[in-house]
Amino acid sequence: MAPTATFVAKSPNFPLPIPNASRPQLPASLRLALPRHLSFAVAGRRSSVARRAVAASCSLIEPDGGRLVDVVAPEGPAREALRREAAGCPQIRLSRIDLEWVHVLSEGWASPLGGFMREAEFLQTLHFNCLRLGDGSVVNMSLPIVLAIDDAQKRAIGDRRKVALVDARDKPVAILSDIEIYKHNKEERIARTWGTTAPGLPYVEEAITKAGNWLIGGDLEVIERIKYNDGLDQYRLSPAELREEFSRRDADAVFAFQLRNPVHNGHALLMTDTRRRLLEMGYRNPVLLLHPLGGYTKADDVPLHWRMKQHEKVLEDGVLNPETTVVAIFPSPMHYAGPTEVQWHAKSRINAGANFYIVGRDPAGMSHPIEKRDLYDADHGKKVLGMAPGLERLNILPFKVAAYDKKQQKMAFFDPSRPQDFLFISGTKMRTLAKNREDPPDGFMCPGGWKVLVDYYDSVTPQETNRSREAVPA
Amino acid sequence: MAPTATFVAKSPNFPLPIPNASRPQLPASLRLALPRHLSFAVAGRRSSVARRAVAASCSLIEPDGGRLVDVVAPEGPAREALRREAAGCPQIRLSRIDLEWVHVLSEGWASPLGGFMREAEFLQTLHFNCLRLGDGSVVNMSLPIVLAIDDAQKRAIGDRRKVALVDARDKPVAILSDIEIYKHNKEERIARTWGTTAPGLPYVEEAITKAGNWLIGGDLEVIERIKYNDGLDQYRLSPAELREEFSRRDADAVFAFQLRNPVHNGHALLMTDTRRRLLEMGYRNPVLLLHPLGGYTKADDVPLHWRMKQHEKVLEDGVLNPETTVVAIFPSPMHYAGPTEVQWHAKSRINAGANFYIVGRDPAGMSHPIEKRDLYDADHGKKVLGMAPGLERLNILPFKVAAYDKKQQKMAFFDPSRPQDFLFISGTKMRTLAKNREDPPDGFMCPGGWKVLVDYYDSVTPQETNRSREAVPA
Repeated sequence: MAPTATFVAKSPNFPLPIPNASRPQLPASLRLALPRHLSFAVAGRRSSVARRAVAASCSLIEPDGGRLVDVVAPEGPAREALRREAAGCPQIRLSRIDLEWVHVLSEGWASPLGGFMREAEFLQTLHFNCLRLGDGSVVNMSLPIVLAIDDAQKRAIGDRRKVALVDARDKPVAILSDIEIYKHNKEERIARTWGTTAPGLPYVEEAITKAGNWLIGGDLEVIERIKYNDGLDQYRLSPAELREEFSRRDADAVFAFQLRNPVHNGHALLMTDTRRRLLEMGYRNPVLLLHPLGGYTKADDVPLHWRMKQHEKVLEDGVLNPETTVVAIFPSPMHYAGPTEVQWHAKSRINAGANFYIVGRDPAGMSHPIEKRDLYDADHGKKVLGMAPGLERLNILPFKVAAYDKKQQKMAFFDPSRPQDFLFISGTKMRTLAKNREDPPDGFMCPGGWKVLVDYYDSVTPQETNRSREAVPA
Repeated sequence: MAPTATFVAKSPNFPLPIPNASRPQLPASLRLALPRHLSFAVAGRRSSVARRAVAASCSLIEPDGGRLVDVVAPEGPAREALRREAAGCPQIRLSRIDLEWVHVLSEGWASPLGGFMREAEFLQTLHFNCLRLGDGSVVNMSLPIVLAIDDAQKRAIGDRRKVALVDARDKPVAILSDIEIYKHNKEERIARTWGTTAPGLPYVEEAITKAGNWLIGGDLEVIERIKYNDGLDQYRLSPAELREEFSRRDADAVFAFQLRNPVHNGHALLMTDTRRRLLEMGYRNPVLLLHPLGGYTKADDVPLHWRMKQHEKVLEDGVLNPETTVVAIFPSPMHYAGPTEVQWHAKSRINAGANFYIVGRDPAGMSHPIEKRDLYDADHGKKVLGMAPGLERLNILPFKVAAYDKKQQKMAFFDPSRPQDFLFISGTKMRTLAKNREDPPDGFMCPGGWKVLVDYYDSVTPQETNRSREAVPA
């Protein structure tokens, strides 16, 4: 049942900017390495998701809009025709983050969105966090998925209706057609997405401030599947592949856990407990989607390679049950936009077949970039998610507070009747311990997982560690 | 058919802060002064508003949520009991803008909202511009209608469940019950409402920056109808009274025109033309709601008194037909929040019975407070309004561009085949002409209306005129 992961050593189109020194040994085995290009088949519909006990069923939640977007050209003449066509189009060179969005769009994580947003979609996202479809129904869409171009690029495009999107080496990746170019009001985009315009928001500095003053939307056609050739591509399962895997495992409930941090035993307790509760509700085989975010993250987050290695240890050590856990990489970049972003994290998992979503304290949050406080109220993410238009079908599972129980010497759900027995180990505290090669209390994290974390901080030069801003864990 | 307006000379609870010198002669007659406290009766339902031709009907569009909120205590024992109860509650003193919101809430302009927002409503407004009701339906709600309190007030309230809202003279106005106190994150509120946090937003400086760090929400009960005793109260018709008047006139369509500027002949042309088009569509008796905003406006806007006087002249001079026009004051304060605010302007008019809404260029817009550009894209208001959740029932009528036709010597719809014949007279240009006592081209505005404008600027001392920031007309 434990598929083997192998190195993928094709010539990289988009080498990861990870220094070799800090690049970990790639995980030798992780849950899930599926045959690629499985045909997509949703076993059935479930229009209203049950909180009640349900009869056994292997049908999965329907994707937003009823159909998964898949705009990767099939291998063969169509793909070659697209490649030739791209060669004759005006070219837009993609940044790493742009490419991650092409990846996200190409596989239908943002279904029914089929390309970078045109203005009508952009405005609906900014103002309403949702899109209205032709039939009057509403799907959630809280983050703008947009592509910026500058004045010179706009001039070069002129009145052409199609552009080619090319990688850092000018190799065509995709075609954007029936394009629409509109103003990129950065201030308004930032204010409405983050609820602040304070300088120092990581995604803003990385992808918006320097970007062009125009946005270009259109329908996307991707020449071939996006790969990063970093040894982790096989864990980048598309929504269709995840659905196939859930069907193969005969899952009748899928609960998603979004993360961008190492897994400790408190997380594991929560996930195990969630499965127990779902079984109690009458589900026969609830499956966990452990779904680390794989796109852009800020400098002081633990890099994807190390996180994947850490997650592998957690499974190897039996903290999570491999039989009922699927580990895969979510290709989206991170905005750190709190209540706005958590909707995206949830919505995209509906498209991957999840009908339960675990939400924690301050999801996708961070410290305010210039004030001494968290940017978002720790409860707003959960509250906003529970009220978000287009997410009515998704069951939101609030994170129970886990802490280190000194009496039991393990992570346990906080018992307010004996608060003195509990020790809260924040993400900041965890990182500080690992950096200083100190051990956390027994039972906080499996020893194999902790070692990965210590190794990671060992591999980072002290200068780098000091430079990184300290973030609030989410 | 032309009801007479009379001076209302009760002792003022909330005297308007208008210097006597600049206070105009109150209008001697204006369309509409209804008997007060008419019983509210919606003649019927129209669940889907027609763009198609419709059979004659005097039913009006249903209020949001199906029922108009009316939380003014009926005269008699209930009112007196409420007054006595208020005397025993912790007190919150209302600012002028707070009182305007009490007014708005009390008469059901924000139906189904029945009081200052609790956090769940506040968050939905900030993130989604709409509220989900218990039955799963959605109503539009784009502006936060909130009441701020400071730390000392919060302490004074303690764990009490009710507070009294009192006026500037500490006279009880209302009770807020089943209260909820939550954090007032001003930065996030401003960013998500205005799409900027730049200093200099008028409403922010007036009502948010200095306000307390907490918001208090709850159910509102108002002791008696809000009056301002400024001679204009009789034009402050409630949504119920407007509906009554539309029914009395046997209107089968109501088209609303929100304004906070003097009416020129371009506006009049548009309104007349709208009626003509509605007649062509098959409506028998479309009635115009000419609905100047009466709450807080920024310093360089023409004050309400002068605008009402100017609107009166426009009707007296026959530029608009009194038989098919209802002039009333909309009690809301102004945010100048562009695409976010125009939704509020439209939604509140549904509650007053309007099923058509005229939207112009850059509605509720202004100049960016610190950059040399308009704060909002001039087309975004119209676009956002057309896509806004909860406004599906409302027919949006985009403003046709009117300009001064030098050939015809009158305001006319712009004819792109002969652009050289048209003169665009901006609000800024109009104000400059009036300030300098210059005449506009013949046919730009009726002479009586123009004279009011000139008189207004004459009444303002030069210092005041110079101090005021020049705004982009909307």
